[in-house]
Amino acid sequence: MTIRIPVVEKILSANDRLAAENRAALDAAGVFSLNFMASPGAGKTSLIEQTVHALAGKLRIAVVDGDIATSLDADRAAAAGASQAVQINTGGDCHLDAVMLHEALPKVNLAGADLLIVENVGNLVCPASFALGTHKSVLIASIPEGDDKPYKYPSMYHGVEALVVNKIDLLPYVPFRMDFFRQGVEALNPGVITFPLSCRTGEGIEPWLNWVIQQVNLKRNL
Amino acid sequence: MTIRIPVVEKILSANDRLAAENRAALDAAGVFSLNFMASPGAGKTSLIEQTVHALAGKLRIAVVDGDIATSLDADRAAAAGASQAVQINTGGDCHLDAVMLHEALPKVNLAGADLLIVENVGNLVCPASFALGTHKSVLIASIPEGDDKPYKYPSMYHGVEALVVNKIDLLPYVPFRMDFFRQGVEALNPGVITFPLSCRTGEGIEPWLNWVIQQVNLKRNL
Repeated sequence: MTIRIPVVEKILSANDRLAAENRAALDAAGVFSLNFMASPGAGKTSLIEQTVHALAGKLRIAVVDGDIATSLDADRAAAAGASQAVQINTGGDCHLDAVMLHEALPKVNLAGADLLIVENVGNLVCPASFALGTHKSVLIASIPEGDDKPYKYPSMYHGVEALVVNKIDLLPYVPFRMDFFRQGVEALNPGVITFPLSCRTGEGIEPWLNWVIQQVNLKRNL
Repeated sequence: MTIRIPVVEKILSANDRLAAENRAALDAAGVFSLNFMASPGAGKTSLIEQTVHALAGKLRIAVVDGDIATSLDADRAAAAGASQAVQINTGGDCHLDAVMLHEALPKVNLAGADLLIVENVGNLVCPASFALGTHKSVLIASIPEGDDKPYKYPSMYHGVEALVVNKIDLLPYVPFRMDFFRQGVEALNPGVITFPLSCRTGEGIEPWLNWVIQQVNLKRNL
């Protein structure tokens, strides 16, 4: 087992080097970028659909979709009106890494984009360990997953700059103690900006959209 | 990157060796064992609670719970009436492996158990690659995760002996095309035995419980 640690460290530092290159390419093009992470089925693709659909007239949004298999998600992003949608299939890998994004970025016309959303593989563990070079990370939690997830997946909750709590329309039908959930979040990521919303009904989506626009504008004015 | 493959192969073959040892220990004790795998929040722990609660008078059930952090799940299994509940904290690892189960098994009194349920880390990717030595694997899917999961996480759907579809009580509130889901399952795992149920309402739980009892009896009669 002693050989595992140095190998992992080497992979990580190569990853961080390429993440820095990705960031530089995005910065040079003036593109703001988000890394969407979540459990399978929490609503990453649905949030992309809603965001692209609502902001299509205001922002040119490119999407890079990571999945083990299929191009279902890139197809959904394109159908919702993303100006560009690129699929990465990881084969069996449980997360995106900076190498994969580095290979995908040349397929994106960055000059024709204001915002790049990268949809990571559905997983509450592995994606937290691999920086991609994106500007901010967003965790999409969802009500039916249950209120104990911050306690059980601390790295993911610790390392993000924004938290979306999706599927609030299901609150009447499942047990979910919002105060217990929030307590867990606060212990790991005090004051993290949080957007309770429903991609399905549209409830609560406006504050999220305003935050996205604000982030893009902040980037433009730098 | 060329160094990655041999290292992974070595880890896997060591894993398979220990998985065989785990299986031998379970067989020697006449204990039937299940490996529960699922996304975070699909209902692994809830299904353990329901199963333990319903079968407590009929079977002596031991539970080994794997999580990144906390003993919340082992606590729930014990509270539901598991005769033994052992927690494994993986630190950051995204799956259980045979080594971890090998270290946990001596803490279980196998002579005092008929059934061992191992609850894997919530993850639809990594656990599929690591045999534990358990007799059968069960995937717990859930309605709010969405109907496209078999297509996006094929290894997991391919490698299990039983499929539970939990949270059917939420079918009226979320879009879920059961035929599309089933089509994806059939392509990967033709005819896999499937239990649509709701841990919350108890609907559909009987066929699942009967299957568990049947599996334990089949093992006893070998």
